[in-house]
Amino acid sequence: MDKFNSIIKKAWGVHNSLLCVGIDPVLSKLPKHLLEVDDTVFTFAKEIIDATHEYVCAYKPNSAFFEALGRDGIRQLRMICDYINVEYPDLLLILDAKRGDIGSSNEAYAQYAFDYLGVDAVTLHPYLGKEANAPFLNRTDKGCIFLCKTSNPGSGEFQNIPVDRAGKTFLYQHVAKQICSEWNDHENCMLVVGATYPEELKEVRDIVGDIPILVPGIGLQGGDLEKTLSAGLTSSKKGLIITVSRSIIYAGSGEDFAQKSREEAKKIYSHITKFTT
Amino acid sequence: MDKFNSIIKKAWGVHNSLLCVGIDPVLSKLPKHLLEVDDTVFTFAKEIIDATHEYVCAYKPNSAFFEALGRDGIRQLRMICDYINVEYPDLLLILDAKRGDIGSSNEAYAQYAFDYLGVDAVTLHPYLGKEANAPFLNRTDKGCIFLCKTSNPGSGEFQNIPVDRAGKTFLYQHVAKQICSEWNDHENCMLVVGATYPEELKEVRDIVGDIPILVPGIGLQGGDLEKTLSAGLTSSKKGLIITVSRSIIYAGSGEDFAQKSREEAKKIYSHITKFTT
Repeated sequence: MDKFNSIIKKAWGVHNSLLCVGIDPVLSKLPKHLLEVDDTVFTFAKEIIDATHEYVCAYKPNSAFFEALGRDGIRQLRMICDYINVEYPDLLLILDAKRGDIGSSNEAYAQYAFDYLGVDAVTLHPYLGKEANAPFLNRTDKGCIFLCKTSNPGSGEFQNIPVDRAGKTFLYQHVAKQICSEWNDHENCMLVVGATYPEELKEVRDIVGDIPILVPGIGLQGGDLEKTLSAGLTSSKKGLIITVSRSIIYAGSGEDFAQKSREEAKKIYSHITKFTT
Repeated sequence: MDKFNSIIKKAWGVHNSLLCVGIDPVLSKLPKHLLEVDDTVFTFAKEIIDATHEYVCAYKPNSAFFEALGRDGIRQLRMICDYINVEYPDLLLILDAKRGDIGSSNEAYAQYAFDYLGVDAVTLHPYLGKEANAPFLNRTDKGCIFLCKTSNPGSGEFQNIPVDRAGKTFLYQHVAKQICSEWNDHENCMLVVGATYPEELKEVRDIVGDIPILVPGIGLQGGDLEKTLSAGLTSSKKGLIITVSRSIIYAGSGEDFAQKSREEAKKIYSHITKFTT
């Protein structure tokens, strides 16, 4: 069984890409012709995946949008995960779920993500501490992607409060320090830092060394790609998974939606590649 | 449409109870004879609910244990929620889900909890701030139960770091202050404080006034009921939802499991009632 740090390196290498496509299906935004086919959400995702896979290192379905559709959403989420694992097994499959509970409940969440859906990594909240997160951390072949500095406009409310007497270390920096120094025994930890905060991304990169960072917030949320790469790349020009969701998957709304998503993914991939090769 | 603060008061009044039963089904712990019936998890929960409802103000299924069973688990979770809403509509139905994402994803999580499952309240992470939690907070008829000081042994790692220069205010206290002073415009916020930390419960009660507090950790986790009541009750001897899961639902493992759960629930209810009447 490969360790997670080998799995992610392999995923970066498949197409020499740092781009991840986020799969966040909202029925009202899908191309109208898909509403009449069976398994609408799976079909939408499958066409996007087939059209974009040459440009990506990872896919990241967000559990929220499937849960909103109830058990049928979960069924189609499983179909999407199975499809990626069979057709594109070397790409990283990330469940965006932002889970975080006490240990006995985290055991069950780990089963959902890693065993039922079969993903390679899951996004998690750090708030309950290392002890509670053991059911995730102990899975050496799986990635644990902890929220550090999130992309939303109000993320500073708690994440940017000072936690030292000098007032110079913020909570998100302390979270980054703890996770890289205390939680990463199996080299399977990652952090989430929003592209909307490039200065904070640079600070986190300086704290954590080469730990991989998942960066949402490019596109509709307003994050700048060049600033993100400049702030977050490691010395080997890797270390980032840059995740783009709505601006790729909703690039078109007609029958050519998959082609449009391919064009948008290719554009971002090419833009990234200028800085990484 | 009733506001959440009326709904919770009604729920406390039905049986004059502060007890909540947590529904955390794990197949390997269920009575063996149930493994042979259809809808095992629903049947287990239904029998527990019918046996214990006279002693409770609320039920709290934990989404983790249903997700671990995949789409069939979600199907049965919905059946349990429907059953409680139809048969015991005045009891509070809480989804223990510990969700927390950016606003657009929280819209989808709110749909899952409030619209698909039809629960009255959901447990949430505060880490992304008030702005991201708007899709929950804006539902004036629904409860938003934010993690503050969790019951697990390692909860202090981040929750007990000082966030002021004097080193006297801890993160969980700051979270409590922010939520009660800034987030509670619709009087639909609650906090989670573990029974395993009665001193911290007292401190949070002093900070937040009469805001309802959900208290897990009695029973298997080792929390003390009397210390919890002494630390957390409001002046009107309400203000708490004391949630007990495993020691009630797994009180028996034979065909009489529901009767055993009833006896355990009655025992805890009677114990609580000594302090609240």
